Amino acid sequence: MASEDRRVLAVDLGGTNIRVAVVSPTGDLTHRQAIATDAKDGHKAVIGRMVDLVNAVAIDAGLSAGAPVGVASPGPLDPNTGVVLFTPNLPGWRDVPLGPSLSDGTRRRVSVANDGNCAGLGEMRFGVARGAKNLVYLALGTGVGGGVISNGHLVDGIRGFGAELGHTVVALDGPRCTCGGIGCLESFVAGWAIGREGQLVATTADGEAILAAAGGGTVSAGAVAAAAKAGDRAAITILERAGRALGAAIGSFVNIFNPEIVVIGGGVAGMGEVLLEPARRAIPQFSFVANRSCMRIELSSLGDDTALFGAAALALGGSINA
Amino acid sequence: MASEDRRVLAVDLGGTNIRVAVVSPTGDLTHRQAIATDAKDGHKAVIGRMVDLVNAVAIDAGLSAGAPVGVASPGPLDPNTGVVLFTPNLPGWRDVPLGPSLSDGTRRRVSVANDGNCAGLGEMRFGVARGAKNLVYLALGTGVGGGVISNGHLVDGIRGFGAELGHTVVALDGPRCTCGGIGCLESFVAGWAIGREGQLVATTADGEAILAAAGGGTVSAGAVAAAAKAGDRAAITILERAGRALGAAIGSFVNIFNPEIVVIGGGVAGMGEVLLEPARRAIPQFSFVANRSCMRIELSSLGDDTALFGAAALALGGSINA
Repeated sequence: MASEDRRVLAVDLGGTNIRVAVVSPTGDLTHRQAIATDAKDGHKAVIGRMVDLVNAVAIDAGLSAGAPVGVASPGPLDPNTGVVLFTPNLPGWRDVPLGPSLSDGTRRRVSVANDGNCAGLGEMRFGVARGAKNLVYLALGTGVGGGVISNGHLVDGIRGFGAELGHTVVALDGPRCTCGGIGCLESFVAGWAIGREGQLVATTADGEAILAAAGGGTVSAGAVAAAAKAGDRAAITILERAGRALGAAIGSFVNIFNPEIVVIGGGVAGMGEVLLEPARRAIPQFSFVANRSCMRIELSSLGDDTALFGAAALALGGSINA
Repeated sequence: MASEDRRVLAVDLGGTNIRVAVVSPTGDLTHRQAIATDAKDGHKAVIGRMVDLVNAVAIDAGLSAGAPVGVASPGPLDPNTGVVLFTPNLPGWRDVPLGPSLSDGTRRRVSVANDGNCAGLGEMRFGVARGAKNLVYLALGTGVGGGVISNGHLVDGIRGFGAELGHTVVALDGPRCTCGGIGCLESFVAGWAIGREGQLVATTADGEAILAAAGGGTVSAGAVAAAAKAGDRAAITILERAGRALGAAIGSFVNIFNPEIVVIGGGVAGMGEVLLEPARRAIPQFSFVANRSCMRIELSSLGDDTALFGAAALALGGSINA
């Protein structure tokens, strides 16, 4: 009986919370628990909390010692060694042996991957891309992450740092990106980028509605979206520009990867048509007919649990390269 | 003895010539022959000439009936069926069953792939990327083609139309591309694009040296390069702009694929440092340190034979997806 239990432990390491759950090969997610990441305590404390939570969830679920752990972590990280090089979301993390430490603390086999790559695996195994072997996943959130699967294989490169789709240049002479680059997709469509554009026009006559939506404080992407939905011309222009950049990047990805499906997730995607309609309109201007005619675009069906499902897919053997 | 002969037939189908050779697994290229493509005669005549040439070379080399054929063809084409959808280089080709027709005419196993993908396989098996499992190949010629191998697998997508690296958008509001798109890498760095820019300035005082290099006629990329090498400011500016776009695109590819090597081939790459130096200068502005620090850039060592070696690599089993 125990030998047939193929459930795995899934961990989503975020800047705010560590989330752990048990996931079955058919996608039943149970025994969910979370604690605050509290990154300011340093990486040893964070990993200590993670070890305790994973062990508690494993006992709670009655998992055998053989049940493996998959971890979706911010990157860049080396999936071969489980070492996180650094990450803007977790201050002070530099060359942190996340995988080995978690394995020591739980006495389990641990696989670690970038959260974007995990999400791609999760969408392929459990989400709207189920059954697909060629997919591009784009996470539009505070930053812009990605995951790519080509002919069933994760495209992550020699050290696993690939699929940084948010840092594809779409405008040579475009805005500065937080990564230090210029004109990255992220510098148009990330939450911070939309907020920045909103802030720029908020104090002009054109942007009054944005400022009102922000409650007079710092302008967020959400405030820009709210103003756009209320018909504010300046807000609509910001999101049309972001959407056009998104469509251009998707066009490039369609030419580069010839995917059967592009999955869009993340909080910014929740803005809906005010952003996605201009993106859809732009794609044909930036892609080959042959490539885009065998492709569909879908919103993620896994929502906030994409990385958790992705971590489970990783533990279940999603890392075909290994 | 005959069972140990692992040589294959390699075919490079170009707009001008059909080239055929025999290649051994260790890269000995022998029995080279070529005839004019004469595409105006229609695809049946072209394939007929190709069949005759392959059969003649096979007899000449004393190849067994089991020796397979690899074909590098312009695309887009479906590598699973060997059907060429269409190609700008071969007028009138539309849904041409190149693979099946060649197989019928030669009674041999035939594999067909896009010339860019073939070149990637050829560089990995026989060229400067030997031993690499993660590589990006860029062909800078009349057009800009590409080939990508990730963790040893060709990245070509659901129908094999992927790796169109020349049609990655680098400038949302950039120049028109011949593909119908806007601001593609090709629209900056292809031979036609550099020639177009040269033509635009050739009749101004700034561009006199370009016009002189062109012999007073239509300006080619070569004329722009010659003028730049002679110190002409306008020509240098054109190539700096093209090089910067190339560097931005390579930066994106480094972020997307985390390759261990980027190989640059094609006639335009032969311009050398006047184009490549600005590209190298731009790459750090458009890529992550972690990604670019495990990567090197090399010029192709296979020269005009890249596609021929690639066709051989394909026949030797380079198409790992099959």
